[in-house]
Order: sequence, then structure tokens, then C-alpha cells
Amino acid sequence: MTTLVIGANGQIGKQFCERAQKAGEPVKAMVRREEQTGWFAERGIDTVVADLEGDFSHAFDGCEQVVFTAGSGPDTGPDKTLMIDLYGAIRAAGIAAEKGLKRFIMVSAMRAEDPMTAPEKLRPYMAAKFAADAHLRLSPLPHVILKPGRLSDDAATELFAASVDEAGDNRISRANVACALLYAVQHAVLENTEFTLLDGTRSAAEVMA
Amino acid sequence: MTTLVIGANGQIGKQFCERAQKAGEPVKAMVRREEQTGWFAERGIDTVVADLEGDFSHAFDGCEQVVFTAGSGPDTGPDKTLMIDLYGAIRAAGIAAEKGLKRFIMVSAMRAEDPMTAPEKLRPYMAAKFAADAHLRLSPLPHVILKPGRLSDDAATELFAASVDEAGDNRISRANVACALLYAVQHAVLENTEFTLLDGTRSAAEVMA
Repeated sequence: MTTLVIGANGQIGKQFCERAQKAGEPVKAMVRREEQTGWFAERGIDTVVADLEGDFSHAFDGCEQVVFTAGSGPDTGPDKTLMIDLYGAIRAAGIAAEKGLKRFIMVSAMRAEDPMTAPEKLRPYMAAKFAADAHLRLSPLPHVILKPGRLSDDAATELFAASVDEAGDNRISRANVACALLYAVQHAVLENTEFTLLDGTRSAAEVMA
Repeated sequence: MTTLVIGANGQIGKQFCERAQKAGEPVKAMVRREEQTGWFAERGIDTVVADLEGDFSHAFDGCEQVVFTAGSGPDTGPDKTLMIDLYGAIRAAGIAAEKGLKRFIMVSAMRAEDPMTAPEKLRPYMAAKFAADAHLRLSPLPHVILKPGRLSDDAATELFAASVDEAGDNRISRANVACALLYAVQHAVLENTEFTLLDGTRSAAEVMA
């Protein structure tokens, strides 16, 4: 079961691809530019060059599921949020459904289901995540939505919490998000379900069971 | 059958409310601020004060269908496009479905189904319209999506075309969009359907049949 990784060149994407490769889980890393393939090739990870803002349907060939972890990043404006986080996600889900893929695993954000609870500056971003998630929930494609809290660069602990109450904090490391993605990819039984994810004290199996 | 008009204070919204009132079609104009109610009150049009970015679910009480013609307008950035055109529309459709309303009539935009064909500057806006329309199509709520071309301030002709090929141009007056909305509101038989709308030579009944 090969997983297409959209947003592979991002910080979570790279860590996920590396972990998947080490675990013997076949992935295909979708990157925007040819020169981004080197990092993956060095690690024996397959790549496909495709542009999320262009035609990228060829990237899905030979894949059975998708991990979507693309984001326009903190240095771009809401125009790119609209094109990548929203429209890119919706188009990707559309192509995946059309091509008969089996599952779509989305990296969303904690509390994306209620953008108005976010600080005003973050609301447009949360609205984009909200709409992309809502689209996925309504689509016929089986899906898993992961909702990490505030991202840190801490090392992986592979231990999680499912709520701020449980965690006592609102943070999770990108490395732990990558671990949770690998767990989701490896457990096809997870379907049409969503998880808030924070650093914590329980295994992925416990939190995502 | 009372119609809640979201975005009533906009240029299309006002013209639609006025035409509906004259035609004896009950509407409730949703406006953001108390001082905006005067224009409607003078014309005998019911209003409700509610904020599309706040809690506006009370506005739906006593209404059976919705016209959504809210837009953040040309002078705001994509952050407001995300909050109004996208998130406002999706929330409105959600509340309408929850409250068991009968129909949702959306003012979208020509070619919103393919944002990449728009000039680059317009693409984020088109992506927001695309996502809002896609959400409505997937939702259980019966809907009509009107897709006007480039808007002008010309007078109403009440004559339409359904494609650029037919029209020989890409324009439609806001007054004609208001006429088409009235036609849609008055014809409950229109359900789960969408129309490109331009100024033309055919009646609403012909173009939207």
C-alpha cells in the first residue's frame, strides 16, 4: 500500500517520509521542484515532481492512500492559504476519490472545527482548515483527520495526549506528528475518524484506538 | 415562504430585496449594524441584525430558504474572503441544514468550478467560491448556485444568456442578478442545480428552466 505524501518537503513531511522509509512503509514524496528530490533520493525514498497549484494528478498513479501535510507556511499570506491549504487539499481529495484511492490522511489543526475560538489573526487560516476538513468529511473518500496543537521542534517521544486537559499544554512536536502519521498509515482500520494530538504520555495505539 | 437574505446590504442584496418586496415575496434582510436597517424599513422590508462573523443563527428563525449574496468586497484582502465568502457561506449552509430550511440559493461566480483559469490575482477569491460551492453541493441541503459573470451597474433588462458563447461577452448587471435571484426564489422546483448567468436575450424562465 503506497502512500503519496503531499507536502513531503515540509518539516513534518520530511520526518514522516524518513520514518516511513525506515519502517519499510512504501511512500512516494511529492515535491514541487526537481532540485528537492535529492534529499529523498539519498534516503532511498521515491519522489514525484508535481505542483499542487498546477496539474498534479499524475502523482497519484500507483498510490493507494494520501498523506496531506502541505501548508503554505507562516511566511505567506492568506492568498496562499487559500490556494494551498484549502484549494490544494480539496483538489487532492477530489483526485484521490476519482482515482479510487482507499484513504486520505489529513494533517489539520487543533480546534479547526471552530475557527472563531482562535486569536483573530489566526482565524482565516483556521477557516481554511475548517473548510478543507468539512469537505473531506462530506466526501465519499475514507479519511483520517489529525489535529495537532501548536507545533514545536522537540524530539520525538512517540507519546501523545488527545486533549489540552489531558496534556496540560497545547503543544506537540513535528516529530511526534510524523510518528502519529506513520501509525495512521499503517492502520488501515482507521477510517472516517479524527484525533486531536498533543505531546503526552500515551502511545499512538492508545490515543488513536 | 420567507427568504433570509444574507448580504442584504450589498449592491445585489439591496436590489434583490427591493424587487422581492415589490413582487410580494416575503424576505428578511440580514444586516450587520442597526443603522443599516433604515434603508430597508423605509421600503417596508423586514430586517434582522446579525453578524456573519459572529453568532447569526437567530436570523434564520421563521425563514424557509436563504439567499446568500454576502461578499467581503473588492477593498478587503483574502483574509476577509476566507472569513466571509468561504467560512460565512459554509456556516450559513450548516445552520440552514440544522434548522431544516428548504433551500439555499448561492450567488457564486462564473468559472468558480475552475479557479486556475482565472487571472492569478483572482484565484484565491475563486478558490474560496469554489470551496463554498463544493461544500453546498456535498451538503444535504437543496440548493441553487447562480454564477454571474463580471458585474456591471447597468439597468435591469431581465434578459439573460447562459454562457459566454451565447452572450458574446462576460458581463451581467447586478440588477439582472437580482432579477435572476427573484426568479429562483419564486420557483421552488429549482433544486440542486447551477447556472452561469450573463446579460443576454432570453428570459430567466428560458435560461433557468
